[in-house]
Amino acid sequence: MTSILVTSQAADLLRARLSEIPGGDDVRLVTFGQADDHVLSQIRMALVSRDITGTSTKYVHSEALARFYDVLRAAGGLQWVHTHSAGLDRPIFGELQARGVAVTASSGANAQVVAHTAVGAVLALARRFPQMMRRQARHEWRSLAVGDMPPDLPGQTAAIVGWGPIGQGIGALLSALGVRIVVARHSGVPVAQAAATTTYADMASILREAHWLIIACPLAPATNRLVDAHMLAALPAGAHVVNVGRGEILVERDLIAALDGGHLAGAFLDVFEQEPLPANSPLWDREDVMITPHSAGHAAGNYQRVLDIFLEKLAHRLQRERAAAGRSQCS
Amino acid sequence: MTSILVTSQAADLLRARLSEIPGGDDVRLVTFGQADDHVLSQIRMALVSRDITGTSTKYVHSEALARFYDVLRAAGGLQWVHTHSAGLDRPIFGELQARGVAVTASSGANAQVVAHTAVGAVLALARRFPQMMRRQARHEWRSLAVGDMPPDLPGQTAAIVGWGPIGQGIGALLSALGVRIVVARHSGVPVAQAAATTTYADMASILREAHWLIIACPLAPATNRLVDAHMLAALPAGAHVVNVGRGEILVERDLIAALDGGHLAGAFLDVFEQEPLPANSPLWDREDVMITPHSAGHAAGNYQRVLDIFLEKLAHRLQRERAAAGRSQCS
Repeated sequence: MTSILVTSQAADLLRARLSEIPGGDDVRLVTFGQADDHVLSQIRMALVSRDITGTSTKYVHSEALARFYDVLRAAGGLQWVHTHSAGLDRPIFGELQARGVAVTASSGANAQVVAHTAVGAVLALARRFPQMMRRQARHEWRSLAVGDMPPDLPGQTAAIVGWGPIGQGIGALLSALGVRIVVARHSGVPVAQAAATTTYADMASILREAHWLIIACPLAPATNRLVDAHMLAALPAGAHVVNVGRGEILVERDLIAALDGGHLAGAFLDVFEQEPLPANSPLWDREDVMITPHSAGHAAGNYQRVLDIFLEKLAHRLQRERAAAGRSQCS
Repeated sequence: MTSILVTSQAADLLRARLSEIPGGDDVRLVTFGQADDHVLSQIRMALVSRDITGTSTKYVHSEALARFYDVLRAAGGLQWVHTHSAGLDRPIFGELQARGVAVTASSGANAQVVAHTAVGAVLALARRFPQMMRRQARHEWRSLAVGDMPPDLPGQTAAIVGWGPIGQGIGALLSALGVRIVVARHSGVPVAQAAATTTYADMASILREAHWLIIACPLAPATNRLVDAHMLAALPAGAHVVNVGRGEILVERDLIAALDGGHLAGAFLDVFEQEPLPANSPLWDREDVMITPHSAGHAAGNYQRVLDIFLEKLAHRLQRERAAAGRSQCS
């Protein structure tokens, strides 16, 4: 019998599906409230689902999430934790890995949603929706034919930073919109559909032609504070920045300076150096910045997609355990 | 020598390009200010370009546009007028056609721009940008993970009304986003990439499954007030309406009633029954309606695309005239 720590919402959805996988009938789902000392000692695996993370950020935890993390810390037999998030940059995961716990993420579960948000951001900025929404609030009818019309989006170039499932989704959609793409990625291995590909470190070379800089990579030593004053200065005048990656990748002070200096035309930011974005951040009141609360990937279908990924990984893990048990019986 | 009435901006751009077309050297460009009685009598053709229409609407003309129209009315030898707009629903064109003047539109010149705006509207509404922009204005950080998350866009169905260049562009992009499409079009001839196709009159049948109703057809007797209470009631609860066609196609009072009743979730409106939208319209203050000032198709590249279309039509016309002149000399 394998005990897995889950939330009660996840338990309700998983119970009916465990029988789908070989060995699933030998799994016991332990919900959060049941975790007394005896149960705690039996927990081998855990699923961190969206309902327990809730609206907590990397920096600010809800009480329930703090308790869930405490259970993970106290479960001495824990071998594997799977999380709904795409990245593993929350400190708890490093802590668990340090004591030998395998930690896996739901890479790709919300990738399509994030890609849609990023492309929606490009279209909203290209078609000047924020400006027109402010005019709507003032009951102001003012045609875009007055003054400079928006430049044509087709034929422009977008630099996509990160070529995981999110970056690839963004690339496919922007190509369908007639936008030329260039890519910066960890490996630097050329992307067939991109006009140019570089590593993160050499990224400035592809930014010189990029009307759009779209950050869609994980946070890692190579991407921490990657987009700074130097990189932003490499962009052509009038460029836009979209960040659906992680706040630490973009140096906010440098972004603000580039906007204030008139070098950049605007930005769409879903992630920030500090989350929630502090009430006194100068970003809130900028008309050239669209702010969304780290919600680029939120969609109703994510929960099921995370369970799909979890069940697939669980099936592999149970199979390996049975195989290992079989070998030890034979030897 | 063929005299063509144009604006001075169009003249500056056309002059260099007339030599590209056979017979172009025999064309004289007459700018607006030069049109005395003698010149007026020689005008055979005219180009209504964006710079003269400016921000005038079908209902409200600038003084300059009114004067331009007066010149068209007074030019007794006028045979052909080409306009930058995609439609011919401005009354001046009907008036000219009634006296035998050929009138042509720049169908397709801004189709891609309008399609991008419509798809941007779908993404902005699907990803709840208007709601998040209002929260930004209040410095309010509130994750989309609180309460009902937005439903997944892939797998939803969009009904596209009109299958000209704009509707086709919207269809291709929505398909790339994983949205299933159904189509209502004048002919009712099945569209290969649509799950269902109907005529405008039978449209209610395809609306029952449409999370999105996207109006992208010309104004015509068959589309005037096409989307009324009956059609809106056919949509499933929570549907959105996007209008980038013409204001007369959507009955605003019925839309407002469907929003007030909670049947519809929201709308993006670029066109209105009256333009500019009257200051006292109840639409302005609705949080569930995004308003843009008949600007869905405005982009800097349109002017050149209109000139391309005009020059192509001019070349054909000059060729036909030379051929006719040749025949009359031979007979």
